[in-house]
Amino acid sequence: MSRERVSLVTLGVDDLRRARAFYEAWGWVVRQAADDIVFFQANGLVLSLYLRSALAHELGRDAAELGTGRSTLAQNFHTEGEVDERFKSAVMAGAAMVRRPARTEWGGYSGYVADPDGHLWELATNPFWHLDDDGSVTIPHNLPGA
Amino acid sequence: MSRERVSLVTLGVDDLRRARAFYEAWGWVVRQAADDIVFFQANGLVLSLYLRSALAHELGRDAAELGTGRSTLAQNFHTEGEVDERFKSAVMAGAAMVRRPARTEWGGYSGYVADPDGHLWELATNPFWHLDDDGSVTIPHNLPGA
Repeated sequence: MSRERVSLVTLGVDDLRRARAFYEAWGWVVRQAADDIVFFQANGLVLSLYLRSALAHELGRDAAELGTGRSTLAQNFHTEGEVDERFKSAVMAGAAMVRRPARTEWGGYSGYVADPDGHLWELATNPFWHLDDDGSVTIPHNLPGA
Repeated sequence: MSRERVSLVTLGVDDLRRARAFYEAWGWVVRQAADDIVFFQANGLVLSLYLRSALAHELGRDAAELGTGRSTLAQNFHTEGEVDERFKSAVMAGAAMVRRPARTEWGGYSGYVADPDGHLWELATNPFWHLDDDGSVTIPHNLPGA
């Protein structure tokens, strides 16, 4: 059994209605919800929006010390057009533009948006990795630098 | 084609050698590496460790403003014994204990550790969700509250 896994990604949010509304407007479909948490099913893992105060309580920390930005989530696509479209749809749903999509020096195409709570999403193509239609990625074994 | 996806999770780290050593000691296997980034293959998504200064540059932000704690990653397991074992192995690899594993009020079993850069991992069981052997989870459609 493989132990290398990410089963859930949980994003702490200040206003669950606002956060849920953003993700629904961006195209995510709620699979399960409670007063302080909402769950979306993704490719083999779950994305959850969790009230920041509840997350802080669960962690035994002060809500004010929980920061964002040092980690990012990415959605990969096959084409630059899809990246542009998903970037535009995020902004139309209420995301802040962080960096417009552009060619990268490593040969991909990438842009960043921030959700209403500051959580960062990269929207990208990476021609060197295998991408399934559900967004799952696999790194080839035979790449240099491994 | 499904658009709800998390293709990558990227963690900004201050010392790539230290961060890589922690994850390798915890059982992750590097699939690809460069000077400022390391990639691990997980269940349909990639976990990457990326030098915080490079991430900040990519985001057009100051490295000092990038915080942690408002998002968490989780690894789900079938048994409480596996959670305890993964918790212990994380601590032995250099993680900080945030909350020892304990029964939760919603019927699971969960503990938290922080990696050397402060990124939070929850180790948990959730008897209400389907868990594949690779750590992928699926939320049933017929749950209350959906």
